[in-house]
Amino acid sequence: MSLPNDPVEHLIALLSKLPGLGRRSARRAVLRMLMAPETRMTPLADALKAAAAAVKPCSICGNLDASDPCHICTDPDRDRELICVVEGVAELWALERAHAHDGLYHVLGGTLSAMAGVGPEDLSVTPLLRRLEGAREIILALPATVEGATTAHYLADRLRPSGIPVTRLAQGVPMGGALDVLDDGTLAAAFKARR
Amino acid sequence: MSLPNDPVEHLIALLSKLPGLGRRSARRAVLRMLMAPETRMTPLADALKAAAAAVKPCSICGNLDASDPCHICTDPDRDRELICVVEGVAELWALERAHAHDGLYHVLGGTLSAMAGVGPEDLSVTPLLRRLEGAREIILALPATVEGATTAHYLADRLRPSGIPVTRLAQGVPMGGALDVLDDGTLAAAFKARR
Repeated sequence: MSLPNDPVEHLIALLSKLPGLGRRSARRAVLRMLMAPETRMTPLADALKAAAAAVKPCSICGNLDASDPCHICTDPDRDRELICVVEGVAELWALERAHAHDGLYHVLGGTLSAMAGVGPEDLSVTPLLRRLEGAREIILALPATVEGATTAHYLADRLRPSGIPVTRLAQGVPMGGALDVLDDGTLAAAFKARR
Repeated sequence: MSLPNDPVEHLIALLSKLPGLGRRSARRAVLRMLMAPETRMTPLADALKAAAAAVKPCSICGNLDASDPCHICTDPDRDRELICVVEGVAELWALERAHAHDGLYHVLGGTLSAMAGVGPEDLSVTPLLRRLEGAREIILALPATVEGATTAHYLADRLRPSGIPVTRLAQGVPMGGALDVLDDGTLAAAFKARR
């Protein structure tokens, strides 16, 4: 009654740790790949290695990208006076997919949380304050949660001395909703109606 | 409005081709991995390469395994006089997980289908007929579909001259159901009640 042996079980165990893949779907995926290892497994392994080697955080905004500074920070067509502050890279990517923002980003790396012991020193706040020169608006695209609101209040306080207008996404983001699972239309509308 | 660039998009595209992973979940998985490439991506890449290099079809039964003959064919504790014929490796693994069978297997590699142009010469039938010596029962664990029934009839005809009893899984497998998504209890019960 032995199950398939080590390399396969090991691979299934690793794959089933990914979000969205349970043990059953990981097994199906592995089996599908094993039917054609040369065309399905080797390219995926190479792509993983290539991404792991190439991708690093942007030293300006914190985006994950194959170049540093990232392709957004170096894009001459983007509005460099608009900085959109996001919790993480997932939210940055979601806003990009929604084509909601044509300026720059700043990845905080989290939100303030007394419960989880996350303080301002754990977030990328000082690097944000150092980027303000020339900015005409800071957009706080933070989640509509207690932590998101607390973080937005805190950042608004820290940004006030600069005199730069600080806006937030419009109501329209569902309460408790995470930005990166919103549909693109809602996200784009909330972005445009920011106040 | 550019999206994250090549290595990441390439990896997402490859991952989203796996069964059970859409583009959105592939993106989430990649992002999760990119947070810790050394501990999450490199081991997965290595596991994929190791499995691709190690795993091959068993030259006796057709199972996919890191050794040839496979660990089932070489297991001295298994009943070598019982051969269970399955459509594919997914079904073999499902029966193993259900602990339904302690004999050997034979992977056909498909089922007969006039529609899909699959004939007996496309399946592992001749290798099965060559394995019959010493067998006391051949169990046809084929899907409860038209193709499965056609294939079972065909195999029963081909096996008749050997005089070896041929059994099928009991009714209890839902009509149109694929073996590898059945719950283990149903699968084990149908196996025991084979006729």
